[in-house]
Amino acid sequence: MSVLMQFAMFPTDKGASASPYVSRILAMIRESGIPYQLSAMGTIIETDTLAEAQAIVNQAYALLQADCSRIYCTVTFDIREGKTGRMQQKVASVEEKIGPVNH
Amino acid sequence: MSVLMQFAMFPTDKGASASPYVSRILAMIRESGIPYQLSAMGTIIETDTLAEAQAIVNQAYALLQADCSRIYCTVTFDIREGKTGRMQQKVASVEEKIGPVNH
Amino acid sequence: MSVLMQFAMFPTDKGASASPYVSRILAMIRESGIPYQLSAMGTIIETDTLAEAQAIVNQAYALLQADCSRIYCTVTFDIREGKTGRMQQKVASVEEKIGPVNH
Amino acid sequence: MSVLMQFAMFPTDKGASASPYVSRILAMIRESGIPYQLSAMGTIIETDTLAEAQAIVNQAYALLQADCSRIYCTVTFDIREGKTGRMQQKVASVEEKIGPVNH
Repeated sequence: MSVLMQFAMFPTDKGASASPYVSRILAMIRESGIPYQLSAMGTIIETDTLAEAQAIVNQAYALLQADCSRIYCTVTFDIREGKTGRMQQKVASVEEKIGPVNH
Repeated sequence: MSVLMQFAMFPTDKGASASPYVSRILAMIRESGIPYQLSAMGTIIETDTLAEAQAIVNQAYALLQADCSRIYCTVTFDIREGKTGRMQQKVASVEEKIGPVNH
Repeated sequence: MSVLMQFAMFPTDKGASASPYVSRILAMIRESGIPYQLSAMGTIIETDTLAEAQAIVNQAYALLQADCSRIYCTVTFDIREGKTGRMQQKVASVEEKIGPVNH
Repeated sequence: MSVLMQFAMFPTDKGASASPYVSRILAMIRESGIPYQLSAMGTIIETDTLAEAQAIVNQAYALLQADCSRIYCTVTFDIREGKTGRMQQKVASVEEKIGPVNH
């Protein structure tokens, strides 16, 4: 099973800059060893189970909870049986049809 | 702590009608005793912890996994310290400012 | 055609309370005459075209732009040919299968 | 002004594979000349106005409407005054704090 999860989490009580909080979360994800990709709008991870993906959200929340009293978080899951490596394969599948993207 | 979570989960391999799958999930939520609200675009629940909210997503997934090979799910969290009963209070707070809505 | 759109829009540079900003937007939607439903996590509207739904997002943005320098907005569309009145029908379709919800 | 928009649009009446539909949309975005980034969970574009970003959603919808009777679409906006080039800068801002990511 492949669980693709994109999420964005940030405090809404800390002013316009979210990067100090996103940085905490990304340092944790990077250390976790889970495949991930940070973009301007969120972080994608790929795990084998829904529980592993949710654990990352939990840890992210724990990193903000200490000094943030209100937290907003959007999460999107695309869960598919069988295939893995979809973080790259989904983009590759588009490129097979229309040629290179992101270049 | 108040965890407001809205989520929508549906298979993408089963054709245009999602209501048979949404119905399974709603029956489970209704039985859970957790405060919830079903709308045309998702279900809102309010829990005391992030883990409780995630457990509902897990159970929803388990209900679809048996016969769905691809599942899409969007989740939004609004987590705030202190206050509870926010499923009603957030709407009431708007009504205090501009008068009745949803009428 | 029925365009169901749920959206939530709020400043991220104004502290924890979003209700003053949501109130502005809801007053505008209520005056528009478009069918809508405010919940704790967003507002659902139903329109005949995608352009009408987007116009509401534009007007909402215009109402915040004056005094907010950073704005976050999530939007979800469920667009279906033929049927209208889906803001109620989608919930009714679940109730046909499992009995009353939201009670 | 910088409008960052991430969106994902796909039919829900066409079975598990969305890539034929995503490919149509990506070919259009690539031809538009607008800065974009395709990931496994959606496409990010950056525009100067909300209207330009919405126009891309409209064109994407037009490309699916011909042969899809039900379409789901999630959109997230992060709109900020002043700064541009945020598609790269937001990731760079995290890297300034914690070192390289996505490597």
